[in-house]
Amino acid sequence: MMGRAMTAILSSNHQAPAEAFALPAPLVAIDPAKRRTPAEEARALVAANSLATLSTLSEDGGPWGSLVAYATIEHGTPVLLVSTLAEHGRNLPRDPRASLVIASDEAIGGDQLNSGRVTLAGRCEVPVGEELEAARAAFLEAVPMAKHYIDFGDFSLYVLRVDRVRWVGGYGRMDTADAASYAAAETDPVVKSAAYAVAHLNEDHAEHLLLIAQKLSGYTDATHARADRADRYGLDITVTTPRGKAPTRVAFAEAITAPDGLRAASVELVRRAREL
Amino acid sequence: MMGRAMTAILSSNHQAPAEAFALPAPLVAIDPAKRRTPAEEARALVAANSLATLSTLSEDGGPWGSLVAYATIEHGTPVLLVSTLAEHGRNLPRDPRASLVIASDEAIGGDQLNSGRVTLAGRCEVPVGEELEAARAAFLEAVPMAKHYIDFGDFSLYVLRVDRVRWVGGYGRMDTADAASYAAAETDPVVKSAAYAVAHLNEDHAEHLLLIAQKLSGYTDATHARADRADRYGLDITVTTPRGKAPTRVAFAEAITAPDGLRAASVELVRRAREL
Repeated sequence: MMGRAMTAILSSNHQAPAEAFALPAPLVAIDPAKRRTPAEEARALVAANSLATLSTLSEDGGPWGSLVAYATIEHGTPVLLVSTLAEHGRNLPRDPRASLVIASDEAIGGDQLNSGRVTLAGRCEVPVGEELEAARAAFLEAVPMAKHYIDFGDFSLYVLRVDRVRWVGGYGRMDTADAASYAAAETDPVVKSAAYAVAHLNEDHAEHLLLIAQKLSGYTDATHARADRADRYGLDITVTTPRGKAPTRVAFAEAITAPDGLRAASVELVRRAREL
Repeated sequence: MMGRAMTAILSSNHQAPAEAFALPAPLVAIDPAKRRTPAEEARALVAANSLATLSTLSEDGGPWGSLVAYATIEHGTPVLLVSTLAEHGRNLPRDPRASLVIASDEAIGGDQLNSGRVTLAGRCEVPVGEELEAARAAFLEAVPMAKHYIDFGDFSLYVLRVDRVRWVGGYGRMDTADAASYAAAETDPVVKSAAYAVAHLNEDHAEHLLLIAQKLSGYTDATHARADRADRYGLDITVTTPRGKAPTRVAFAEAITAPDGLRAASVELVRRAREL
């Protein structure tokens, strides 16, 4: 049996053999569940993490990667604190072009490549005035240890002016977002609580998840359901059926607006599933 | 009290205020314990992980980062499998310059920046002949899922010819290795078992660790000892003393040559400490 991941890969226009790899379809048609936009996915990854790989240009124009901590100010603008003792800190004053890769360590089904990551590419600038104050405060909040060295002469704060955004959500989930959409997107309020909620649903509410999947996702023959991801709009679920496994999704009744909203939204799903 | 991390930062030639930040010194002088070379540290990080951030050059010459899985063939040469559906897969045929950042998710003392990472920079080449066979076999072993797509027309295997190696082991531990040293370095046989051994020592052998630190690292006044890292040559330990905390290290009697060697080497440390 072909796994969901493989089928998703094959759905992405690869120059693949023309064989058919069909996932089991829902037995009852349901409307597609609302998802985060690629820009919202990007903002969620940026908000959920604090380490990134920075790519800059070395003296010979070759690409140079290095690990950095980052913070963000408004519009999801990343803030970096770099030292000229590090190669990236010597590269940026010479050529401000840079990209940041932020990768989630939450892998679906234990497959490391089936996880979220985003590339933000643009130009680094030294902030001034109010933006410098905001960048400094944000960085010190994200990396409290930096209070010991932020004022050293070899360190500089930079902000990354994001021009291009490429988001990959795992196998077969990927898209590009333009800079304006990225800047305007709202950060998902449940970004910090989603991983715990997913683990809790899987460990303590397997029967509720199965009921939700059977009644609300159209897989009426589901025999098992695993929560993969949670966001403000709904749950990504992998269902097991006698016809094979398939990824599906159920939407919450309303988009969550508070960091602690996942519990109530999940309870509402169970209530709705029971009524059907 | 200044933490070890901060003191280590200050030892690295930053343009820092001229204040003195002294770590407590050992009360008994001991010889420096043997460490892995920077090239060996780099090879250990490469061997211990399977995901990296690849930096390539976009069409406009700007740096572009993306997440990739990698394998290695002899001399620690990284192997990548990239699709022209991804930007990095279109970048490499145009300009083969690339770098890979491989970062450990094991952070000392819970501080994310106090962790190991390495940048390998060089040029990507399409392997041929026996090297292609070795690269293909290595990649399929590292990423079994790839058997489903490795033969698609849009995917190509590349090897990274490593020119430059920059290793950062955490605060104040960093160095550059040349390509020849990197290629010649032996992979530490305990690289896969070290994290478990460190956790086991801390959880179940706190008294043994303290005895080792007191007798073998010169901190005769240590009141607590925490193992931070283990490698084939010894243990990195943080000691707590009435004079403050300090990082120290004890060497094994002999370099470990087998993957399961950490247990016997640690037992030997305890035996030696008891005899003193």
